[in-house]
Amino acid sequence: MAELRKDPITGRWVIIEIDKAKGPGDYEVEEHVKKRGVCPFCPGNEHMTPPEIYADREGDNKPNAPNWQTRVIPNKFPALRVEGNLDRIGIGMYDMMNGIGAHEVIIETPDHAKELGDLTDHEVEKVIWAYRNRSLDLRGDKRFKYILIFRNYGVSAGASLEHPHSQLIALPIIPKRVGEELGFSERYYEYRERCVFCDMLHQEIDDRERVIIENKNFIAFAPFVSRFPFEISIFPKLHSSDFSYIQKEEIVDLARILRETLLRIKAALRDPSYNFIIHTAPIDGKERADYHWHIEIMPRMGRTAGFEWGTGFYLNQTPPELAAWALREVSV
Amino acid sequence: MAELRKDPITGRWVIIEIDKAKGPGDYEVEEHVKKRGVCPFCPGNEHMTPPEIYADREGDNKPNAPNWQTRVIPNKFPALRVEGNLDRIGIGMYDMMNGIGAHEVIIETPDHAKELGDLTDHEVEKVIWAYRNRSLDLRGDKRFKYILIFRNYGVSAGASLEHPHSQLIALPIIPKRVGEELGFSERYYEYRERCVFCDMLHQEIDDRERVIIENKNFIAFAPFVSRFPFEISIFPKLHSSDFSYIQKEEIVDLARILRETLLRIKAALRDPSYNFIIHTAPIDGKERADYHWHIEIMPRMGRTAGFEWGTGFYLNQTPPELAAWALREVSV
Repeated sequence: MAELRKDPITGRWVIIEIDKAKGPGDYEVEEHVKKRGVCPFCPGNEHMTPPEIYADREGDNKPNAPNWQTRVIPNKFPALRVEGNLDRIGIGMYDMMNGIGAHEVIIETPDHAKELGDLTDHEVEKVIWAYRNRSLDLRGDKRFKYILIFRNYGVSAGASLEHPHSQLIALPIIPKRVGEELGFSERYYEYRERCVFCDMLHQEIDDRERVIIENKNFIAFAPFVSRFPFEISIFPKLHSSDFSYIQKEEIVDLARILRETLLRIKAALRDPSYNFIIHTAPIDGKERADYHWHIEIMPRMGRTAGFEWGTGFYLNQTPPELAAWALREVSV
Repeated sequence: MAELRKDPITGRWVIIEIDKAKGPGDYEVEEHVKKRGVCPFCPGNEHMTPPEIYADREGDNKPNAPNWQTRVIPNKFPALRVEGNLDRIGIGMYDMMNGIGAHEVIIETPDHAKELGDLTDHEVEKVIWAYRNRSLDLRGDKRFKYILIFRNYGVSAGASLEHPHSQLIALPIIPKRVGEELGFSERYYEYRERCVFCDMLHQEIDDRERVIIENKNFIAFAPFVSRFPFEISIFPKLHSSDFSYIQKEEIVDLARILRETLLRIKAALRDPSYNFIIHTAPIDGKERADYHWHIEIMPRMGRTAGFEWGTGFYLNQTPPELAAWALREVSV
């Protein structure tokens, strides 16, 4: 038997298989095939990338030299370009603008062979500081409305280079999914004068069934309406709409929970490819009472079937309660 | 350089790469690996499937016997089940209903080794008749709000069995994407008193740049805001909101254009996996002036990268103008 569950944030219905649910071992996981060749992200190859925008070095901070811990560079093959004016035009009934934006790569460690979860807590903190600093810097550019920070791990998650890295795209538009979240959470707030995400956190903390881990400032859980098997959300417990205003103490806790969550995914699910994305409010300077930033982690277990792509309607064969249990119980 | 284009139907922005666009040869296409073992959909194995719901046989129409051309059966592993009442419950702030629905398989030909594009026009017509007849039958069930017809071809598109087949799911809810299309097209209609899809067809027929093929009653084109490389839409030229009211003469033309489009995909793109989905109005008996049914075809070229999954924001490296040209020019 299956259940139909409705996501309170987006209004989306998802079919969740209950009776013949799939556990961690029931999915095919693609192996990570090592590539050969010179890695442009490795220390000593700084000349192979565009000049750096930001780096974290101990001692002498000479740009584009080795000895960095994290390093941010423009993407060599950017989806959007930073130069030019933002022009909007109509073509008959269609609307268009030119592809203005920023596309940056956050190199997370000098060590080619490590994964984000293999770093120390302190090293992961430095990655989050890089996210924060680049977000704060880019919000000064009036052409941009949104800053998207995401990470692709593994070929089936779209990663084209192995060396641990995340990406940042500054956009002149608000992504559709975020726009929907904003719209729904605004209506919920109008009706109840409470943040829908805060309400959700309270319920998850009470239920405990879907909670994976938590610490003082953050909680990781499998969402009640998971679209994908073993999908995970990480939320700050304290209400805040904008990731880029994260505080020092919170960065410490976020690094710990993110690292441990990634280790649990690796251990429980046989090192699958995954994506994570930071969902945060648009750049408009104001703190919103109705939105709550968070991270969505989506391991790539199996393939998305046909109708999901064209309908926005998902079928998930692993109930989040089972996913949370498996990720909670695995030893790391 | 890239362009940002806004979909007039869903409000979605898509990044379209223009300068360093990828052509048909620039994508990795997964090979179709043949499976071994007995096929439950082949003639003579009718006892291996649940009892048939519908079949098209020449002469003696004895159920669950060979000699059929198309055959519809309940899915042996259904996402939703047809038995039971539709109960809605709340769990704290979450909404749920039990998984009531119908899930059927349309076996398109007795020939295991053929693809839908390899059938004769007349055989494809029979498949469309099966879609239509099952749609008309299921709309009598008051628990259902929507009938989703789709086809997965190839393992990377989610097909688990090779024998040519499509699927039908009758749902107690309206899929999110369709709900969005309905909402946007309703607003467009309120403002202009015209169907947004009809306006789009007029512009595409005038422009011709994105048109692939057409006949008297149907047109196939690459949408101006294609989310995926080589995405194709097939529309009836005459306004109609509901697929299940398709007329006999239209079925002849739809079979021809669908078959030729699939052959062109196979020839131009080296036989990729693909999904197609019929987008039609919800079951409510009324013909809508503001909605226009259509088929979306999505070849699986390469992989979807990370941020597309979590943001509803897409990056497409093949402009639809190039896709249409390649699909138009290939000889079939």
